[in-house]
Amino acid sequence: MGIKIGLIGAGRMGKVYASTLAFSISEADLVALADPSLEPLDEVASRYHIAQRFHDYHELLAQKDIEAVVIASPTGTHAEMVIAAAQAGKQIFCEKPLSQDLKACDNAIAAVKQAGVKLQMGFMRRFDPPYAAAKQKILEGVIGTPVMFKATSRDPRRTSLEFARRENSGGMIMDMGVHDFDLARWLMGSEVRRVQSEGACLAFSELKEVGDIDNAVINLRFTNDAVGNIDISRNAVYGYDIRTEVMGTEGSLWIGYLQQTPTLVLNRAGVTHDTVPYFMERFAIAYAEQVRVFVNHILNDTEPHVTGEDARAATAIGIAATLSLDEERPVLISEIE
Amino acid sequence: MGIKIGLIGAGRMGKVYASTLAFSISEADLVALADPSLEPLDEVASRYHIAQRFHDYHELLAQKDIEAVVIASPTGTHAEMVIAAAQAGKQIFCEKPLSQDLKACDNAIAAVKQAGVKLQMGFMRRFDPPYAAAKQKILEGVIGTPVMFKATSRDPRRTSLEFARRENSGGMIMDMGVHDFDLARWLMGSEVRRVQSEGACLAFSELKEVGDIDNAVINLRFTNDAVGNIDISRNAVYGYDIRTEVMGTEGSLWIGYLQQTPTLVLNRAGVTHDTVPYFMERFAIAYAEQVRVFVNHILNDTEPHVTGEDARAATAIGIAATLSLDEERPVLISEIE
Amino acid sequence: MGIKIGLIGAGRMGKVYASTLAFSISEADLVALADPSLEPLDEVASRYHIAQRFHDYHELLAQKDIEAVVIASPTGTHAEMVIAAAQAGKQIFCEKPLSQDLKACDNAIAAVKQAGVKLQMGFMRRFDPPYAAAKQKILEGVIGTPVMFKATSRDPRRTSLEFARRENSGGMIMDMGVHDFDLARWLMGSEVRRVQSEGACLAFSELKEVGDIDNAVINLRFTNDAVGNIDISRNAVYGYDIRTEVMGTEGSLWIGYLQQTPTLVLNRAGVTHDTVPYFMERFAIAYAEQVRVFVNHILNDTEPHVTGEDARAATAIGIAATLSLDEERPVLISEIE
Amino acid sequence: MGIKIGLIGAGRMGKVYASTLAFSISEADLVALADPSLEPLDEVASRYHIAQRFHDYHELLAQKDIEAVVIASPTGTHAEMVIAAAQAGKQIFCEKPLSQDLKACDNAIAAVKQAGVKLQMGFMRRFDPPYAAAKQKILEGVIGTPVMFKATSRDPRRTSLEFARRENSGGMIMDMGVHDFDLARWLMGSEVRRVQSEGACLAFSELKEVGDIDNAVINLRFTNDAVGNIDISRNAVYGYDIRTEVMGTEGSLWIGYLQQTPTLVLNRAGVTHDTVPYFMERFAIAYAEQVRVFVNHILNDTEPHVTGEDARAATAIGIAATLSLDEERPVLISEIE
Repeated sequence: MGIKIGLIGAGRMGKVYASTLAFSISEADLVALADPSLEPLDEVASRYHIAQRFHDYHELLAQKDIEAVVIASPTGTHAEMVIAAAQAGKQIFCEKPLSQDLKACDNAIAAVKQAGVKLQMGFMRRFDPPYAAAKQKILEGVIGTPVMFKATSRDPRRTSLEFARRENSGGMIMDMGVHDFDLARWLMGSEVRRVQSEGACLAFSELKEVGDIDNAVINLRFTNDAVGNIDISRNAVYGYDIRTEVMGTEGSLWIGYLQQTPTLVLNRAGVTHDTVPYFMERFAIAYAEQVRVFVNHILNDTEPHVTGEDARAATAIGIAATLSLDEERPVLISEIE
Repeated sequence: MGIKIGLIGAGRMGKVYASTLAFSISEADLVALADPSLEPLDEVASRYHIAQRFHDYHELLAQKDIEAVVIASPTGTHAEMVIAAAQAGKQIFCEKPLSQDLKACDNAIAAVKQAGVKLQMGFMRRFDPPYAAAKQKILEGVIGTPVMFKATSRDPRRTSLEFARRENSGGMIMDMGVHDFDLARWLMGSEVRRVQSEGACLAFSELKEVGDIDNAVINLRFTNDAVGNIDISRNAVYGYDIRTEVMGTEGSLWIGYLQQTPTLVLNRAGVTHDTVPYFMERFAIAYAEQVRVFVNHILNDTEPHVTGEDARAATAIGIAATLSLDEERPVLISEIE
Repeated sequence: MGIKIGLIGAGRMGKVYASTLAFSISEADLVALADPSLEPLDEVASRYHIAQRFHDYHELLAQKDIEAVVIASPTGTHAEMVIAAAQAGKQIFCEKPLSQDLKACDNAIAAVKQAGVKLQMGFMRRFDPPYAAAKQKILEGVIGTPVMFKATSRDPRRTSLEFARRENSGGMIMDMGVHDFDLARWLMGSEVRRVQSEGACLAFSELKEVGDIDNAVINLRFTNDAVGNIDISRNAVYGYDIRTEVMGTEGSLWIGYLQQTPTLVLNRAGVTHDTVPYFMERFAIAYAEQVRVFVNHILNDTEPHVTGEDARAATAIGIAATLSLDEERPVLISEIE
Repeated sequence: MGIKIGLIGAGRMGKVYASTLAFSISEADLVALADPSLEPLDEVASRYHIAQRFHDYHELLAQKDIEAVVIASPTGTHAEMVIAAAQAGKQIFCEKPLSQDLKACDNAIAAVKQAGVKLQMGFMRRFDPPYAAAKQKILEGVIGTPVMFKATSRDPRRTSLEFARRENSGGMIMDMGVHDFDLARWLMGSEVRRVQSEGACLAFSELKEVGDIDNAVINLRFTNDAVGNIDISRNAVYGYDIRTEVMGTEGSLWIGYLQQTPTLVLNRAGVTHDTVPYFMERFAIAYAEQVRVFVNHILNDTEPHVTGEDARAATAIGIAATLSLDEERPVLISEIE
């Protein structure tokens, strides 16, 4: 009865989107799933009652009744799939990042433009209620002119060594920082002009072997002269810690939370509460909300607000910040264009 | 493919359960809806794609393929519907309270027992993650022996004057306190023996005309000698304020939260955050979770933990606390048996 | 150079006042100390460089150059000392309570009035910055009309068994509740009309032997019909827990804090902070501030705001709440006059 | 009876130390005050009953009975006064910074060493209870190995334009960051090796005319490879905001607080609390405690823990961070030696 949607990818993120499409969005019908691996394909298709299943995503794209696709495959395949989906005339929702390569971003953006289809990128934090509330308050002028951006992005444990390799994840700054780079541009209402990174492998020495780090701080300078800093860590053993601040001339906004269950334990050891375990506990609502918004963009024929250009800009900042780490100097975003 | 469920009631709570059954519980199929009012019946049935619709709930109960019913009709009809559903051999989930009359509770409980069906009562707070975590910690002995129960239950605005009448709501103490009476028994692991209420109409003078009050404090004495207090108010203009504490010999547990969106605004006026607007924002997860547990009890043929007897006990405390208000004296629960 | 002050009492509270008078109030000179016990007398006098020391407080009162006295002796002696100090023409600051006996309160108040001296009672919480800020906000109408008073007063450990006896402490409700009874009257701007207590010995069974309890909840009914509840406990093993709320028709005020050191520890066990250990850590500023205000009342010849009548009223509520505990019924304050 | 102390400086900080020495430290006698301005000299001396007063601080240093001096004069005079006091054989407590010039620091340190006197620098935050508690926990290994340092230092309003000039304040980074540079070295247990600053004049355009900025972020790289970031702002219109974090391999410590009065106001606008107005409200205890510790070092003939070398190191980081701002590049601390 709703919009017919095909999902590409039956891995970790594929399951997230399958669940959302199957249960949370009544205007969408999840009718097809594609994944080259047989086992997850069957498991996910069965669990969420998805009628059609394909090993090759091109077959999914060839189905005429499928109006839109959700791309949740490994990062390295996003750009080519966006191009193929655009050429097949599908409306496209694509998990972030579009690509870790700027040229590939450009090609995907061009294909989407040429096909005249919609592309919404999966920067879900923009749809998280506290971030959305903050953006709204900034627009209302509650904090005056934003002058400083602060972000903390910390994982409770390190990624796999294989994924940590630059060729897979893009390195920690690209991998974990990309959401903050997007928030920085969006919340500050200004592009990033220059970055300077300090980072090192301090907690998990085995990451050195694959060329990655586990802690970094990144200074930001915006085109409107505002300043910022992002700290990233893989060893927040206490939990998943995502907090953001936008400070302006007339006030400040703090966004995020650390406590998961509102239960306090008070005993001789003091007062204790738990923390958010990981990203799905923190951003479950946002993951669903962004797809709901995407479906509504299709229904109402309106343009998505999180575009391919946004994805490209976040990638550019990530490339520059990683170059700054390597070369131990500030890097202008304009250098890497 | 799942358990076939019929829903009785298409009002405010009926919509809550329709949404939960339609979208959140994959093991259940919402196949029928009954409501005497045509408009909500059609609206809810259409919105949630419910195939069968009935004006008379007896017709719904007559459907052989319906295995279970969810009763979300007005309070005064709960007991008779539980009896009819039991006699029809259906598994039963019933919104609280079972009845504001102890005899009616007894009749419903007896009918359920005779029919050998399951009855789970909708005290959803027990399924709210912080309350569930607290109960677990008490069982683990984290706070030693519970000795004091504290609860705050406050609405952001008054109910309608019509609903406020004793014959409809049971009065404020019964209406708003029933969840706390249930939590008191459950978390303290002891029955309430005696109550004493102080209450008055202090904020909304129009409530006096229909015989209701808007603020009350209720002392509790448990059979194991522990003590407690519940405060209830209809004029928490700042938001929906539900907090509970269980204090023991070795520590204390505080349960609940007041902040809805984790966004802090800092400006010359100080630091400000919002509050939870009302009960659905606060307990959405709990409403879904209790139905999921009910469905699993059917699937696994296990007994629900929130029983008709629990509902009867909460009602008895409510009757006693209201009598204490009227007669300005402590009332033993045993008096009203 | 300042007002010459004599201190009566060199025990726990005497040391608090000696330190305050010696170091924090430049307009006062602590010139004399009286205590029947030789050891504390000498220790405190030496430590704070107090020139004159007396075993018998009457000798201190006989010193013509002493303008004011601070009475910090055992509770049972307060009333007689106030009378003697008034007859000696001294300005009087007296630790709470004035007496646990209403007749003794009346005699002391009469003596003060007859002598035309000032009497300020040591309800120091009124001078604690958060309580003072709350009172100010209530007067400004920030919360509309106060309709509910809530208080939590908990000690981290039990008192000595000897002190716990009714003839010494007045029992737990009188001993620990007296500050809350004073706050209730002051913050609500209304007298208490009726009380009902539930209490038991639940954590320290040895208290039963001396006739005391360790946990209680006390319902309050004010003359303006507002309601309230105070909970008291001796087994807040997690720390010293003093919190108060005044809820009105237009908002609510929460007063107090539990965290002592603003250091959060975040590790695999969660997020932890400490608590306030005991009353001096919590109310050090208030203890000093009330004496500073007293000295200023002398300097400016203005009347203290915390009077003998206030002390008498708090005692009356304590007597009524204890009677309610004993007789298991609501008690009107008017009954015990 | 205690150690005789002379105070140099009767300005803002001089009053702070006069009050502390006069009222809070019983082992010290404040016997002399020096200030070239007649009015503050007389006012402060009278208010705190200081017997001797001098226009020329050399006269104060010439008094044989004065054992120690507290230097609270303008920043530019600290180094020469330390040298003169050392040559006069006095024990020295000196407000931070020692000097904004490294050569001047060296000279002062050498003079102190040659004279064999004690020098304690006024980095009072180390004596603030939450910072002291955090340092203790780090030493106990509670967070494992520190790997990241985060600091926020924000003033509620800009300084005077005259003071903002580089030649007076050293510029915002030096002026406001010096405490954080000291905390960074102390809490991380490692020297800072490299800094990179981004800063601009964003809120108070008039600061541009005197060559200063109002917002900055400073990346830190420590000799042990740990990373860090400090943000500094002059436009925290919401209050005085000083927060610090030390994150380690096994956990994290958050230090500081924003709320001044523990009173919450809850109304239709949400939940609101106040903030700390400025540094004396925040660090009053720390200011007193550091002097108490200094006096005890004299009494016990032990060495102060906050040394001239510490002051020099903080100044060096400030110079490097300011150079980084000017030259838009990372600066090694070793460059400016």
